[in-house]
Amino acid sequence: MNKPPIDFYFDFSSPYSYITSEWIEALAARHGRTVRWHAVLLGVTFQAAELKPPVAHPIKRDYVLRDFARSARFEGLPYTQPEVFPIPTQNAARVFWWLNENDPGRAVAWARACLRAYFARGVNLSDPEALKALAAEFGLEPDHAEAVWNEPAWKERLKRANESAVAAGMFGAPYVIVDGEPFWGNDRKAQIERWLSQGPF
Amino acid sequence: MNKPPIDFYFDFSSPYSYITSEWIEALAARHGRTVRWHAVLLGVTFQAAELKPPVAHPIKRDYVLRDFARSARFEGLPYTQPEVFPIPTQNAARVFWWLNENDPGRAVAWARACLRAYFARGVNLSDPEALKALAAEFGLEPDHAEAVWNEPAWKERLKRANESAVAAGMFGAPYVIVDGEPFWGNDRKAQIERWLSQGPF
Repeated sequence: MNKPPIDFYFDFSSPYSYITSEWIEALAARHGRTVRWHAVLLGVTFQAAELKPPVAHPIKRDYVLRDFARSARFEGLPYTQPEVFPIPTQNAARVFWWLNENDPGRAVAWARACLRAYFARGVNLSDPEALKALAAEFGLEPDHAEAVWNEPAWKERLKRANESAVAAGMFGAPYVIVDGEPFWGNDRKAQIERWLSQGPF
Repeated sequence: MNKPPIDFYFDFSSPYSYITSEWIEALAARHGRTVRWHAVLLGVTFQAAELKPPVAHPIKRDYVLRDFARSARFEGLPYTQPEVFPIPTQNAARVFWWLNENDPGRAVAWARACLRAYFARGVNLSDPEALKALAAEFGLEPDHAEAVWNEPAWKERLKRANESAVAAGMFGAPYVIVDGEPFWGNDRKAQIERWLSQGPF
Protein backbone atom coordinates (compact mmCIF):
# COMPACT_ATOMS: atom_id res chain seq x y z
CA MET A 1 0.00 0.00 0.00
CA ASN A 2 1.28 3.43 -0.89
CA LYS A 3 1.86 5.85 1.96
CA PRO A 4 -0.12 9.10 1.73
CA PRO A 5 1.62 12.07 0.12
CA ILE A 6 3.03 14.98 2.09
CA ASP A 7 1.31 18.34 1.57
CA PHE A 8 3.71 21.27 1.22
CA TYR A 9 2.18 24.76 1.28
CA PHE A 10 4.45 27.63 0.33
CA ASP A 11 4.56 31.22 -0.89
CA PHE A 12 7.03 32.38 -3.56
CA SER A 13 8.06 35.29 -1.32
CA SER A 14 8.88 33.16 1.73
CA PRO A 15 12.61 32.54 2.40
CA TYR A 16 11.89 29.60 4.69
CA SER A 17 9.66 28.11 1.95
CA TYR A 18 12.56 28.39 -0.47
CA ILE A 19 14.86 26.52 1.93
CA THR A 20 12.27 23.81 2.56
CA SER A 21 11.59 23.46 -1.17
CA GLU A 22 15.20 22.39 -1.60
CA TRP A 23 15.08 19.46 0.85
CA ILE A 24 11.49 18.26 1.02
CA GLU A 25 11.45 16.04 -2.08
CA ALA A 26 14.61 14.17 -1.07
CA LEU A 27 13.40 13.73 2.50
CA ALA A 28 10.02 12.44 1.34
CA ALA A 29 11.62 10.07 -1.18
CA ARG A 30 13.89 8.57 1.49
CA HIS A 31 10.73 7.53 3.33
CA GLY A 32 8.73 6.33 0.35
CA ARG A 33 6.55 9.42 0.12
CA THR A 34 5.65 11.88 -2.59
CA VAL A 35 5.00 15.59 -2.11
CA ARG A 36 1.97 17.60 -3.20
CA TRP A 37 3.02 21.22 -3.66
CA HIS A 38 0.55 24.04 -2.98
CA ALA A 39 1.45 27.57 -4.08
CA VAL A 40 -0.55 29.98 -1.92
CA LEU A 41 -0.58 33.61 -0.82
CA LEU A 42 0.88 33.89 2.66
CA GLY A 43 -0.80 37.26 3.11
CA VAL A 44 -4.22 35.58 3.02
CA THR A 45 -3.21 33.19 5.79
CA PHE A 46 -1.63 36.03 7.82
CA GLN A 47 -4.90 37.92 7.59
CA ALA A 48 -6.90 34.91 8.79
CA ALA A 49 -4.61 34.58 11.81
CA GLU A 50 -4.38 38.36 12.41
CA LEU A 51 -0.62 38.29 11.79
CA LYS A 52 1.81 40.57 9.99
CA PRO A 53 4.98 39.54 8.14
CA PRO A 54 7.95 39.13 10.53
CA VAL A 55 9.81 41.97 8.79
CA ALA A 56 6.92 44.32 9.63
CA HIS A 57 7.89 44.16 13.32
CA PRO A 58 10.69 46.30 14.75
CA ILE A 59 13.56 44.31 16.34
CA LYS A 60 12.21 41.03 14.92
CA ARG A 61 12.88 42.38 11.44
CA ASP A 62 16.65 42.61 12.05
CA TYR A 63 16.71 39.11 13.45
CA VAL A 64 14.78 37.39 10.68
CA LEU A 65 16.78 39.05 7.90
CA ARG A 66 19.88 37.59 9.55
CA ASP A 67 18.20 34.24 10.15
CA PHE A 68 16.95 33.84 6.55
CA ALA A 69 20.52 33.91 5.24
CA ARG A 70 21.96 31.86 8.09
CA SER A 71 19.27 29.20 7.79
CA ALA A 72 20.02 28.95 4.05
CA ARG A 73 23.75 28.58 4.76
CA PHE A 74 22.92 25.94 7.36
CA GLU A 75 21.35 23.90 4.55
CA GLY A 76 24.17 24.70 2.15
CA LEU A 77 22.00 26.83 -0.13
CA PRO A 78 22.81 30.06 -1.94
CA TYR A 79 20.85 33.02 -0.58
CA THR A 80 20.86 36.72 -1.37
CA GLN A 81 18.32 38.86 0.44
CA PRO A 82 16.15 40.34 -2.34
CA GLU A 83 16.14 44.12 -2.31
CA VAL A 84 12.39 44.22 -2.87
CA PHE A 85 10.92 42.05 -0.12
CA PRO A 86 8.36 40.77 0.50
CA ILE A 87 6.58 40.85 -2.85
CA PRO A 88 3.09 39.92 -4.11
CA THR A 89 3.37 36.53 -5.79
CA GLN A 90 -0.02 35.86 -7.30
CA ASN A 91 1.25 35.82 -10.91
CA ALA A 92 3.89 33.15 -10.28
CA ALA A 93 1.34 31.18 -8.25
CA ARG A 94 -1.31 31.28 -10.98
CA VAL A 95 1.19 29.95 -13.52
CA PHE A 96 2.00 27.21 -10.99
CA TRP A 97 -1.65 26.12 -10.78
CA TRP A 98 -2.04 26.26 -14.54
CA LEU A 99 0.97 23.97 -15.03
CA ASN A 100 -0.20 21.76 -12.18
CA GLU A 101 -3.48 21.03 -13.94
CA ASN A 102 -1.77 18.92 -16.58
CA ASP A 103 1.64 18.15 -15.16
CA PRO A 104 2.30 18.51 -11.41
CA GLY A 105 5.98 17.70 -11.94
CA ARG A 106 6.32 20.63 -14.32
CA ALA A 107 4.57 22.88 -11.79
CA VAL A 108 7.12 21.82 -9.16
CA ALA A 109 9.95 22.60 -11.55
CA TRP A 110 8.41 26.06 -12.10
CA ALA A 111 8.11 26.60 -8.34
CA ARG A 112 11.77 25.73 -7.85
CA ALA A 113 12.84 27.93 -10.74
CA CYS A 114 10.91 30.89 -9.30
CA LEU A 115 12.12 30.38 -5.71
CA ARG A 116 15.75 30.07 -6.83
CA ALA A 117 15.45 33.06 -9.15
CA TYR A 118 14.06 35.26 -6.40
CA PHE A 119 16.24 34.15 -3.49
CA ALA A 120 19.52 33.37 -5.21
CA ARG A 121 19.49 35.87 -8.12
CA GLY A 122 17.15 38.62 -6.94
CA VAL A 123 14.72 38.25 -9.85
CA ASN A 124 11.65 40.25 -8.79
CA LEU A 125 8.75 37.88 -9.44
CA SER A 126 6.24 40.69 -8.94
CA ASP A 127 7.58 42.59 -11.94
CA PRO A 128 5.63 41.31 -15.00
CA GLU A 129 8.57 41.83 -17.37
CA ALA A 130 10.98 39.97 -15.07
CA LEU A 131 8.48 37.15 -14.63
CA LYS A 132 7.90 36.90 -18.38
CA ALA A 133 11.67 36.69 -18.91
CA LEU A 134 11.85 33.94 -16.29
CA ALA A 135 8.97 32.11 -17.99
CA ALA A 136 10.84 32.27 -21.29
CA GLU A 137 14.01 30.94 -19.61
CA PHE A 138 11.88 28.11 -18.22
CA GLY A 139 10.56 27.24 -21.67
CA LEU A 140 7.15 28.88 -21.58
CA GLU A 141 5.87 31.31 -24.18
CA PRO A 142 6.06 34.57 -22.14
CA ASP A 143 2.91 36.17 -23.54
CA HIS A 144 1.03 32.99 -22.85
CA ALA A 145 2.30 32.98 -19.26
CA GLU A 146 1.05 36.54 -18.88
CA ALA A 147 -2.33 35.56 -20.34
CA VAL A 148 -2.52 32.75 -17.79
CA TRP A 149 -1.97 35.01 -14.78
CA ASN A 150 -4.61 37.42 -16.09
CA GLU A 151 -7.12 34.63 -16.67
CA PRO A 152 -10.09 34.51 -14.23
CA ALA A 153 -9.97 30.71 -14.10
CA TRP A 154 -6.43 30.69 -12.66
CA LYS A 155 -7.18 33.56 -10.32
CA GLU A 156 -10.04 31.45 -9.05
CA ARG A 157 -7.84 28.35 -8.76
CA LEU A 158 -5.34 30.25 -6.58
CA LYS A 159 -8.16 31.61 -4.46
CA ARG A 160 -9.34 28.07 -3.79
CA ALA A 161 -5.80 27.05 -2.86
CA ASN A 162 -5.60 29.92 -0.36
CA GLU A 163 -8.92 28.94 1.17
CA SER A 164 -7.82 25.31 1.47
CA ALA A 165 -4.61 26.42 3.17
CA VAL A 166 -6.49 28.45 5.79
CA ALA A 167 -8.93 25.58 6.28
CA ALA A 168 -5.94 23.29 6.84
CA GLY A 169 -4.73 25.59 9.63
CA MET A 170 -1.99 27.43 7.75
CA PHE A 171 -0.92 30.77 9.24
CA GLY A 172 2.74 30.89 8.17
CA ALA A 173 5.02 29.35 5.55
CA PRO A 174 6.20 26.77 4.88
CA TYR A 175 3.36 24.65 6.24
CA VAL A 176 3.71 20.91 5.85
CA ILE A 177 1.10 18.26 6.62
CA VAL A 178 2.07 14.62 7.11
CA ASP A 179 -0.67 12.11 7.90
CA GLY A 180 -2.88 14.95 9.13
CA GLU A 181 -0.13 16.33 11.42
CA PRO A 182 0.80 19.98 10.71
CA PHE A 183 4.38 21.25 10.83
CA TRP A 184 5.06 24.98 10.49
CA GLY A 185 8.46 26.25 9.44
CA ASN A 186 11.65 25.13 7.80
CA ASP A 187 12.91 24.43 11.31
CA ARG A 188 10.50 21.52 11.79
CA LYS A 189 12.61 19.40 9.41
CA ALA A 190 13.94 17.16 12.20
CA GLN A 191 10.44 16.56 13.57
CA ILE A 192 9.09 15.75 10.10
CA GLU A 193 12.00 13.35 9.60
CA ARG A 194 11.28 11.58 12.87
CA TRP A 195 7.59 11.33 11.99
CA LEU A 196 8.41 9.84 8.59
CA SER A 197 10.91 7.34 9.96
CA GLN A 198 9.20 6.30 13.20
CA GLY A 199 5.59 7.40 12.90
CA PRO A 200 3.63 9.61 15.33
CA PHE A 201 5.50 10.72 18.47
CA MET B 1 41.83 30.88 27.12
CA ASN B 2 38.26 30.34 28.24
CA LYS B 3 35.56 30.60 25.62
CA PRO B 4 32.91 33.27 26.26
CA PRO B 5 29.73 32.12 28.01
CA ILE B 6 26.44 31.61 26.22
CA ASP B 7 23.62 34.01 27.16
CA PHE B 8 20.25 32.33 27.60
CA TYR B 9 17.23 34.63 27.95
CA PHE B 10 13.97 32.99 29.02
CA ASP B 11 10.55 33.62 30.54
CA PHE B 12 9.03 31.25 33.10
CA SER B 13 5.81 31.14 31.08
CA SER B 14 7.46 30.11 27.80
CA PRO B 15 7.12 26.42 26.83
CA TYR B 16 9.98 26.65 24.34
CA SER B 17 12.16 28.22 27.07
CA TYR B 18 11.36 25.24 29.30
CA ILE B 19 12.45 22.81 26.59
CA THR B 20 15.66 24.73 25.88
CA SER B 21 16.43 24.98 29.62
CA GLU B 22 16.62 21.20 29.69
CA TRP B 23 19.32 20.86 27.00
CA ILE B 24 21.33 24.07 26.97
CA GLU B 25 23.70 23.32 29.85
CA ALA B 26 24.68 19.92 28.47
CA LEU B 27 25.14 21.31 24.96
CA ALA B 28 27.29 24.18 26.24
CA ALA B 29 29.39 21.86 28.42
CA ARG B 30 30.09 19.54 25.48
CA HIS B 31 31.72 22.52 23.77
CA GLY B 32 33.58 23.93 26.78
CA ARG B 33 31.12 26.74 27.42
CA THR B 34 29.16 27.93 30.39
CA VAL B 35 25.67 29.46 30.30
CA ARG B 36 24.51 32.75 31.79
CA TRP B 37 20.80 32.52 32.50
CA HIS B 38 18.61 35.65 32.24
CA ALA B 39 15.05 35.50 33.59
CA VAL B 40 13.05 38.19 31.81
CA LEU B 41 9.47 39.14 31.04
CA LEU B 42 8.59 38.12 27.52
CA GLY B 43 5.70 40.59 27.52
CA VAL B 44 8.15 43.48 27.67
CA THR B 45 10.03 42.21 24.64
CA PHE B 46 6.75 41.52 22.77
CA GLN B 47 5.72 45.10 23.38
CA ALA B 48 9.03 46.45 22.07
CA ALA B 49 8.59 44.43 18.88
CA GLU B 50 4.83 45.11 18.61
CA LEU B 51 4.04 41.44 18.94
CA LYS B 52 1.38 39.45 20.77
CA PRO B 53 1.77 35.96 22.29
CA PRO B 54 1.27 33.21 19.66
CA VAL B 55 -1.79 31.91 21.52
CA ALA B 56 -3.43 35.34 21.11
CA HIS B 57 -3.77 34.70 17.36
CA PRO B 58 -6.62 32.61 15.93
CA ILE B 59 -5.50 29.51 13.98
CA LYS B 60 -1.91 29.93 15.18
CA ARG B 61 -3.14 29.28 18.72
CA ASP B 62 -4.29 25.75 17.88
CA TYR B 63 -1.02 24.99 16.17
CA VAL B 64 1.31 26.21 18.90
CA LEU B 65 -0.57 24.41 21.65
CA ARG B 66 -0.01 21.21 19.66
CA ASP B 67 3.58 22.10 18.88
CA PHE B 68 4.52 22.91 22.51
CA ALA B 69 3.70 19.35 23.58
CA ARG B 70 5.14 17.74 20.44
CA SER B 71 8.39 19.69 20.70
CA ALA B 72 8.72 18.57 24.34
CA ARG B 73 8.12 14.93 23.34
CA PHE B 74 10.69 15.34 20.57
CA GLU B 75 13.25 16.15 23.29
CA GLY B 76 11.97 13.38 25.55
CA LEU B 77 10.59 15.78 28.15
CA PRO B 78 7.39 15.59 30.19
CA TYR B 79 4.90 18.30 29.25
CA THR B 80 1.37 19.07 30.38
CA GLN B 81 -0.22 22.19 28.94
CA PRO B 82 -0.93 24.39 31.97
CA GLU B 83 -4.62 25.28 32.30
CA VAL B 84 -3.76 28.89 33.13
CA PHE B 85 -1.52 30.05 30.30
CA PRO B 86 0.30 32.29 29.74
CA ILE B 87 0.89 33.74 33.22
CA PRO B 88 2.71 36.77 34.63
CA THR B 89 6.05 35.57 35.97
CA GLN B 90 7.64 38.56 37.65
CA ASN B 91 7.61 36.98 41.13
CA ALA B 92 9.52 33.87 40.08
CA ALA B 93 11.89 36.07 38.06
CA ARG B 94 12.65 38.42 40.97
CA VAL B 95 13.51 35.45 43.19
CA PHE B 96 15.78 34.25 40.37
CA TRP B 97 17.69 37.55 40.32
CA TRP B 98 17.92 37.63 44.11
CA LEU B 99 19.46 34.13 44.18
CA ASN B 100 21.67 35.01 41.20
CA GLU B 101 23.28 37.85 43.13
CA ASN B 102 25.12 35.48 45.46
CA ASP B 103 24.93 32.12 43.72
CA PRO B 104 24.16 31.90 39.98
CA GLY B 105 24.09 28.10 40.18
CA ARG B 106 21.35 28.23 42.78
CA ALA B 107 19.41 30.68 40.59
CA VAL B 108 19.64 28.20 37.69
CA ALA B 109 18.37 25.43 39.96
CA TRP B 110 15.44 27.67 40.91
CA ALA B 111 14.71 28.43 37.25
CA ARG B 112 14.65 24.73 36.44
CA ALA B 113 12.46 23.95 39.45
CA CYS B 114 9.96 26.63 38.39
CA LEU B 115 9.90 25.66 34.71
CA ARG B 116 9.42 21.98 35.53
CA ALA B 117 6.77 22.75 38.14
CA TYR B 118 4.76 24.85 35.69
CA PHE B 119 5.11 22.75 32.55
CA ALA B 120 5.20 19.23 33.97
CA ARG B 121 2.98 19.58 37.07
CA GLY B 122 0.80 22.58 36.32
CA VAL B 123 1.97 24.61 39.34
CA ASN B 124 0.67 28.14 38.69
CA LEU B 125 3.72 30.33 39.33
CA SER B 126 1.57 33.47 39.24
CA ASP B 127 -0.38 32.33 42.32
CA PRO B 128 1.55 33.65 45.37
CA GLU B 129 0.53 30.72 47.56
CA ALA B 130 1.56 28.16 44.95
CA LEU B 131 4.87 29.97 44.42
CA LYS B 132 5.52 30.12 48.16
CA ALA B 133 4.88 26.39 48.43
CA LEU B 134 7.29 25.80 45.55
CA ALA B 135 9.88 28.01 47.26
CA ALA B 136 9.52 25.93 50.45
CA GLU B 137 9.90 22.72 48.43
CA PHE B 138 13.06 24.23 46.93
CA GLY B 139 14.48 25.00 50.39
CA LEU B 140 13.70 28.70 50.68
CA GLU B 141 11.81 30.26 53.56
CA PRO B 142 8.47 31.02 51.83
CA ASP B 143 7.78 34.31 53.60
CA HIS B 144 11.26 35.47 52.75
CA ALA B 145 10.72 34.56 49.08
CA GLU B 146 7.53 36.63 49.13
CA ALA B 147 9.40 39.56 50.73
CA VAL B 148 11.99 39.30 47.94
CA TRP B 149 9.45 39.58 45.14
CA ASN B 150 7.84 42.57 46.82
CA GLU B 151 11.17 44.31 47.34
CA PRO B 152 11.83 47.38 45.11
CA ALA B 153 15.48 46.38 44.63
CA TRP B 154 14.54 43.08 42.95
CA LYS B 155 11.77 44.69 40.95
CA GLU B 156 14.41 47.09 39.69
CA ARG B 157 16.86 44.25 38.96
CA LEU B 158 14.26 42.48 36.80
CA LYS B 159 13.47 45.71 35.00
CA ARG B 160 17.14 46.08 34.10
CA ALA B 161 17.21 42.50 32.84
CA ASN B 162 14.20 43.20 30.60
CA GLU B 163 15.83 46.32 29.23
CA SER B 164 19.06 44.45 28.54
CA ALA B 165 17.11 41.76 26.72
CA VAL B 166 15.41 44.28 24.43
CA ALA B 167 18.74 46.02 23.86
CA ALA B 168 20.21 42.63 22.89
CA GLY B 169 17.48 42.25 20.25
CA MET B 170 15.18 39.85 22.08
CA PHE B 171 11.57 39.73 20.82
CA GLY B 172 10.65 36.13 21.66
CA ALA B 173 11.79 33.31 23.93
CA PRO B 174 14.06 31.52 24.29
CA TYR B 175 16.69 33.90 22.95
CA VAL B 176 20.28 32.66 22.97
CA ILE B 177 23.39 34.64 22.14
CA VAL B 178 26.65 32.90 21.26
CA ASP B 179 29.70 35.04 20.44
CA GLY B 180 27.37 37.94 19.63
CA GLU B 181 25.21 35.82 17.30
CA PRO B 182 21.51 35.69 18.25
CA PHE B 183 19.41 32.53 17.98
CA TRP B 184 15.68 32.71 18.62
CA GLY B 185 13.70 29.63 19.57
CA ASN B 186 14.14 26.12 20.88
CA ASP B 187 14.27 25.05 17.22
CA ARG B 188 17.63 26.75 16.65
CA LYS B 189 19.35 23.99 18.68
CA ALA B 190 20.99 22.45 15.61
CA GLN B 191 22.32 25.83 14.43
CA ILE B 192 23.68 26.63 17.91
CA GLU B 193 25.32 23.22 17.98
CA ARG B 194 26.98 23.79 14.63
CA TRP B 195 28.18 27.24 15.73
CA LEU B 196 29.66 25.79 18.91
CA SER B 197 31.40 22.92 17.15
CA GLN B 198 32.57 24.62 13.95
CA GLY B 199 32.39 28.35 14.62
CA PRO B 200 30.55 30.95 12.55
CA PHE B 201 28.80 29.71 9.42
